[in-house]
Amino acid sequence: MFHADAPHLRILRLLRDEGAVSRAELGDRLELTRPRLLAEVERLVGVGLIAEAGMAASRGGRRSTLVEIHPRLRFAAVDLGASSIDIEVVNGRLEPVATYREAADIRSGPKVILQRVNELLAKARIDGAYERLDGVGIGVPGPVSFRDGVPVSPPIMPGWDRYPVRELLAREHGCPAVVDNDVNIMAIGERHGGVAHSVDDFLFVKIGTGIGCGIHLGGTVYRGIDGCAGDIGHIQVDANGPFCSCGNAGCLEALFSGAALARDALAAARAGESPALAERLAGAEELTARDVAEGAAEGDVTCIRLIREGGRRVGGVLATLVSFANPSMIVIGGGLAQLGHVLLAEIRSVVYRRSLPLATGNLPVVLSELGGRAGVTGAAVLASDMAFEQAS
Amino acid sequence: MFHADAPHLRILRLLRDEGAVSRAELGDRLELTRPRLLAEVERLVGVGLIAEAGMAASRGGRRSTLVEIHPRLRFAAVDLGASSIDIEVVNGRLEPVATYREAADIRSGPKVILQRVNELLAKARIDGAYERLDGVGIGVPGPVSFRDGVPVSPPIMPGWDRYPVRELLAREHGCPAVVDNDVNIMAIGERHGGVAHSVDDFLFVKIGTGIGCGIHLGGTVYRGIDGCAGDIGHIQVDANGPFCSCGNAGCLEALFSGAALARDALAAARAGESPALAERLAGAEELTARDVAEGAAEGDVTCIRLIREGGRRVGGVLATLVSFANPSMIVIGGGLAQLGHVLLAEIRSVVYRRSLPLATGNLPVVLSELGGRAGVTGAAVLASDMAFEQAS
Repeated sequence: MFHADAPHLRILRLLRDEGAVSRAELGDRLELTRPRLLAEVERLVGVGLIAEAGMAASRGGRRSTLVEIHPRLRFAAVDLGASSIDIEVVNGRLEPVATYREAADIRSGPKVILQRVNELLAKARIDGAYERLDGVGIGVPGPVSFRDGVPVSPPIMPGWDRYPVRELLAREHGCPAVVDNDVNIMAIGERHGGVAHSVDDFLFVKIGTGIGCGIHLGGTVYRGIDGCAGDIGHIQVDANGPFCSCGNAGCLEALFSGAALARDALAAARAGESPALAERLAGAEELTARDVAEGAAEGDVTCIRLIREGGRRVGGVLATLVSFANPSMIVIGGGLAQLGHVLLAEIRSVVYRRSLPLATGNLPVVLSELGGRAGVTGAAVLASDMAFEQAS
Repeated sequence: MFHADAPHLRILRLLRDEGAVSRAELGDRLELTRPRLLAEVERLVGVGLIAEAGMAASRGGRRSTLVEIHPRLRFAAVDLGASSIDIEVVNGRLEPVATYREAADIRSGPKVILQRVNELLAKARIDGAYERLDGVGIGVPGPVSFRDGVPVSPPIMPGWDRYPVRELLAREHGCPAVVDNDVNIMAIGERHGGVAHSVDDFLFVKIGTGIGCGIHLGGTVYRGIDGCAGDIGHIQVDANGPFCSCGNAGCLEALFSGAALARDALAAARAGESPALAERLAGAEELTARDVAEGAAEGDVTCIRLIREGGRRVGGVLATLVSFANPSMIVIGGGLAQLGHVLLAEIRSVVYRRSLPLATGNLPVVLSELGGRAGVTGAAVLASDMAFEQAS
C-alpha cells in the first residue's frame, strides 16, 4: 500500500484525533515498520510535538509505552464573519481552552479587524490559555488564494483584496498561519467533529447573511483554480428576480439569505399578510430570520411559506450540483439552519425530485451538528495540519 | 518533496508520454536517487515493460544509455457510443497501430456488443496489430462503478446494469482491463493529447446524442460516489419544457442534444420557418444536427436561432457549474461540437455574463481538439495506467 502523506503527518493526525496511543498500536494502525515508527516518534518527541504518556495495558508481551500529542501545543482558530469575530484557542487534541466571540464589521478593513484579533489573542495569553502558539488558522467571508494566503476580490470585504493576512499573522505570532474561505473551514470542521465525520465527498451549504458551499471531494477541500469554488450564492435562479449586491439580478442569495428573508418578512408584515410577523414588528425596527423561524413554529402560514419558497430555491440549485458532483452527503449550516426542519424538508423534496435517481438513492441531506462552532473547529484543524506539515 | 505515485508508475508514464529518455535524465526529472532509479529500471526491463534504446548524446561525462517503453507493448482502447463501436490498438507510446469503427446499437445488450468488440480485436491480432494485449480500456455511454468495473443503472443501455464488463474483458484477453464512462475517457483523452494538455482542473462537456460532463479536478477524473458525477444532461432547466427520455420534464438534453435538435429542425422545416431545412428535408425522412450546421453556415436565420437557443441552455447550466467548481478551462466536444463557433459564441456569452467575474477572468471555453478520437485516446491512457499500476 502506498500512502500519499508522510509518516510524521499520519502519526501526528492520529494522536490529535484519538488521544494517547501505544507505539505498538501506532505501528499497526499506520502500517509502519517498527524501526521506522520508533525513529519518527523519537524525532517528534525531540521537536516537542509529542510526549510520553505512561504505559499501555499489556497486550501479552512486553508492555508498550503510550505517546500523545504534546500537552503544551496550542493553536489559534479564528472565524471572521460579515459581522462577527469568533476565536478559540485549542490544545493539540483541538479541545478549546479559551473562547472569544464579539460583533465586528468586516468592512472596517483588515487593519482594524486583524488588530482586534491580535488583541483578543493577547488577552488569551494573559488569561493563561497559552504561552506560545504553534499555528494560527483563520477563515474569512470571501474567496481566498489558499496558496498565497490572501483574500482575492472578496465582494463584501472592502480593503481586504490581496491583503497579506497569512504573512502578518505568522509574523505576529511566530508560527505557521493558514487562511481559507469561511465556508471551507466550516466543511472541514463538520468533517472533523460533526455530522460529516470521516465522509470523503460531501457539500457543506452555508445559508446565512449570504450563501456559500464548501466542497469536500476525495477527502479534501476543493477550492478551484481561483479559490472561489463553491461560491453558489451568485448563481442566477430567476432572471426576473430582485437585484443582488453583486450587481446582477436574481442571484440565489438575493432570493433567499438572511438579508433577503428579513426583507421579505418586513414586506409581509407591512402588507398585513402575517399576524405573527406584524406582532413582532410592533416595537421593533426590523425583522430577522429568527422572527420568521418563531412565526413558523407558531404555525404562521406566511412564515412557513417564506421558508418553503427559500428551501425550494436552494433545493433547485442543489439538485443541479448533486447531478454534477454526485456527493454522498449534503450538510446545511449557517444562521438560517435555525429555520430547521421546514427548510430541510423543502430542500430534500426538491433535491430528491429533480436530481438523478442514482445520485439520490442514498443521499442524506442533514443539518450541521456543530452549528456556530463549525468554523473555528475547521480553522483549528487547518492550523494543526499546517504546523504538522512544517515539522518534516 | 513527497510524490503520491510510486516511482515505477512515474517512470513508465514519462516514457509513455515522451519517448526514449536517458537514465541520467530520468533520475533528474523524477528526483530519484541513482541507485533507486537503476534498480527500478532494471526491474521494469526484467518484466518486459521497458527496453534499452541505444546511447544518449553526451552530457559531458560518461554517456548515459537511453531507455524507452517496450516496443512490444500493446493496449486496446474501446469507445462504445449509443450507436457506434470505436476501437484502437495502440503501442506503448499510445500511437495507433490499428483502428476500427462501425455502427452498433448499444441496446443490443452486452453479450452482442462485447462479442463484436472481441471479434474486432481478434481481427486486429490476425492483421498483425498485436500478439498479446497488455491492457484493455473501455468507455460506455452511462454511469459506471469504476471500482467494480461495471455499468450502474445506465438509462440508455438495457441489459448492461452491473454486467461484469471488466472481468469478462480481462479474462478474454488475459490482461488488466478498466471500464469508465464515455465522457470521462474523452476528458482523459483531451488532457493527454488535446487542448487540455496538462490542465489539472477542467470540464469536458460532451454534446451529442445526450449531454454529459467529464470532471477533471486536481489532475484526476472525479467520478462521484456512485459513478454518476457529471451527468448534467438531466438537470432541469425549464419546468415547462418537453418531456425527456428519463421521464422528467425540461431536462437540459430534452431541450438541446442531437435528438432534440433533429426534432426542432424537423418542426421548423414543416412549419415553413426555414428554407434551408425545408430544402434538406425534401427527399429525406428526417433532419440531423449536420443539416442545421450547414443551414447556419449558409446564413439561415432559423438554423442560427436553433443553435443559439441551444447554446444559451447549455451556457446557463455551465454558468452554474463554473460558479460551483471554478475550473480553469471548459472543453466542448461530442457530435454537436460540429455546430462550431455559433454554438461556442453563445455558450461563452452566457457563461461570461452569468458566472462570478473572478471565476471567468481567465476561463477559456474551447472546442475539443481530438474530436471523435478523444474517447479512444482516453481509454488507451486508462488501460496503460492500469497495466503500469499492476506492475508494482
